[in-house]
Amino acid sequence: MLTVAIAGATGAVGEEFLAVLAQRKFPVGTLIPLASARSVGKVVRYGGRDFPVKDLATFDFRGVDVAFFSAGAERSREHGPRAAKAGALVIDNSSAFRLDPAVPLVVPEVNLDAAAGHAGLISNPNCSTILLVMVLAPLLRQVPVRRLVVSTYQAVSGSGAKGLAELARQQDEERAGKAPSLDVYPYPIASNVLPFVAGFGDDALTTEEWKMVKETRRILGRPDLRISATCVRVPVRRAHSEAVNIEFERAVHPDEARAWLAAAPGVTVVDDPTRLVFPTPRDAEGKDPVLVGRIRRDPGCPTALDLFLSGDQLRKGAALNAVQIAEALVPAGRAR
Amino acid sequence: MLTVAIAGATGAVGEEFLAVLAQRKFPVGTLIPLASARSVGKVVRYGGRDFPVKDLATFDFRGVDVAFFSAGAERSREHGPRAAKAGALVIDNSSAFRLDPAVPLVVPEVNLDAAAGHAGLISNPNCSTILLVMVLAPLLRQVPVRRLVVSTYQAVSGSGAKGLAELARQQDEERAGKAPSLDVYPYPIASNVLPFVAGFGDDALTTEEWKMVKETRRILGRPDLRISATCVRVPVRRAHSEAVNIEFERAVHPDEARAWLAAAPGVTVVDDPTRLVFPTPRDAEGKDPVLVGRIRRDPGCPTALDLFLSGDQLRKGAALNAVQIAEALVPAGRAR
Repeated sequence: MLTVAIAGATGAVGEEFLAVLAQRKFPVGTLIPLASARSVGKVVRYGGRDFPVKDLATFDFRGVDVAFFSAGAERSREHGPRAAKAGALVIDNSSAFRLDPAVPLVVPEVNLDAAAGHAGLISNPNCSTILLVMVLAPLLRQVPVRRLVVSTYQAVSGSGAKGLAELARQQDEERAGKAPSLDVYPYPIASNVLPFVAGFGDDALTTEEWKMVKETRRILGRPDLRISATCVRVPVRRAHSEAVNIEFERAVHPDEARAWLAAAPGVTVVDDPTRLVFPTPRDAEGKDPVLVGRIRRDPGCPTALDLFLSGDQLRKGAALNAVQIAEALVPAGRAR
Repeated sequence: MLTVAIAGATGAVGEEFLAVLAQRKFPVGTLIPLASARSVGKVVRYGGRDFPVKDLATFDFRGVDVAFFSAGAERSREHGPRAAKAGALVIDNSSAFRLDPAVPLVVPEVNLDAAAGHAGLISNPNCSTILLVMVLAPLLRQVPVRRLVVSTYQAVSGSGAKGLAELARQQDEERAGKAPSLDVYPYPIASNVLPFVAGFGDDALTTEEWKMVKETRRILGRPDLRISATCVRVPVRRAHSEAVNIEFERAVHPDEARAWLAAAPGVTVVDDPTRLVFPTPRDAEGKDPVLVGRIRRDPGCPTALDLFLSGDQLRKGAALNAVQIAEALVPAGRAR
């Protein structure tokens, strides 16, 4: 059995880590929930036992087998390397190391081989990126891609528990005839969509859009991949969706694509228009696989397909992918 | 002053017609609200006066100058031609005649010339299509386009007053801990997005997606235009948004595009990322212009730009565009 630390244990992703570890019967011997000093004194319940929250800033990682980090990039940068140095396998859900060539960026179904030779630190990709590469990789293995255009429909859980609270509070306020109050987002998210996720970066792309561009290129091992992303927050609770246009090097029949995706691990094809069967974020909520459907020929480009995918942002988009990395790298007993 | 009939006067678009006619001081002398037999007996208030709703099925259009139809394709097919034959200028908001070569399909800022030689019947395009061509046309006048990929974020008002009611009711049900009940949409729209607008058509595209493809081609006079559309319903009340990727024949600088759009009638550029200025559907609500922003280079294609637009589905997407057509064709007194 393993000693497992969770940094950011009291957040939305932290809670999902606990649920995923329990469901997958991860060999947790001792659980160490870590958070900021103001959460010390709280207790996290796991497997019928209570574990007191400890202060991440002062915690000594010696003796920890696996440490899942989901406490923001700043804390990962500060405490991730020292946890790895102390002997823990650190799987970091923040953006801190995702583009660091010394730190593998891994989606197990797609590029587990990239984890070989890691130095104790592995990066979990951005949530929208994970969902996208889960669907892209099985297609790109068959036919090279020429160009990609992605538009996202991202849930408020991507902003953590406070994103979920913001949507619920604004809906209550509107129902009471009040103007929605603002805390997390610069404009209301209730009855709105915001073409703005995270902050703005170079060339008027948002940081989320750059993550999708750069992380997708890195995970697929295609630094030259031609990809555009528009990232949009929508008033949905916890599953992300993406409309994806894929221009291939040759024409691909939708049935071929469906067959390749149906055979892909972690992907479920949900695609029967005549019976009104297609992916929705509500359907993806709480589920492990990425749902993909609406697979069809682009009427404007004979070598392109359109498709639509939905996946649980907190599960495959975050906690599940991280736990899968740990499972793959900790086959027997101790992590390192 | 004109005698103006509104078929579908009691619906969401019908109400918007009344608001737009009043705001624009359209020369309404007599207003004749028309609806199905079950609405007869109701009264529509306009300009401080009450007008009794009459039965569309049996109404004699002789003496009517302008008839705005927004009562569904079936009723337009049945009653539009006879209204035109009786001498009314019929502006039809349904899909009934949009692809009929004998009926002009018009967005005044884009192709008013197409209305010349009409035979009493003019089609108002699909709402998402109107918003798209308002932004595309000023760009395509400058540089030819090679290929388009569009993803929409469509408000529930596109399904009329019952779409708005469905979203509100489902949010109330969820707040009360109940499962959302279904009436208009096949799955919940509260905290969800549906990659399904209208029904399914050929080649696994939805009818809404085909409308965007075919109507955009027709309005722009480019029957070969390479365009893909993914149409998605989102839990937003009344303005549609679209993420648009435009591959041009040559590289276009975002500043060039911004200047061309800033000079275009009916379009407002809302684009200053460093100050968090970008279009949102809440901002577009109740406004006449289409808002466009997030104008940026596609990092995957040197000759492509990405942009994001929002526009009021009931105004420019429906009633406003129809009234603008009437204004352009009724310069002095009588319509025909």
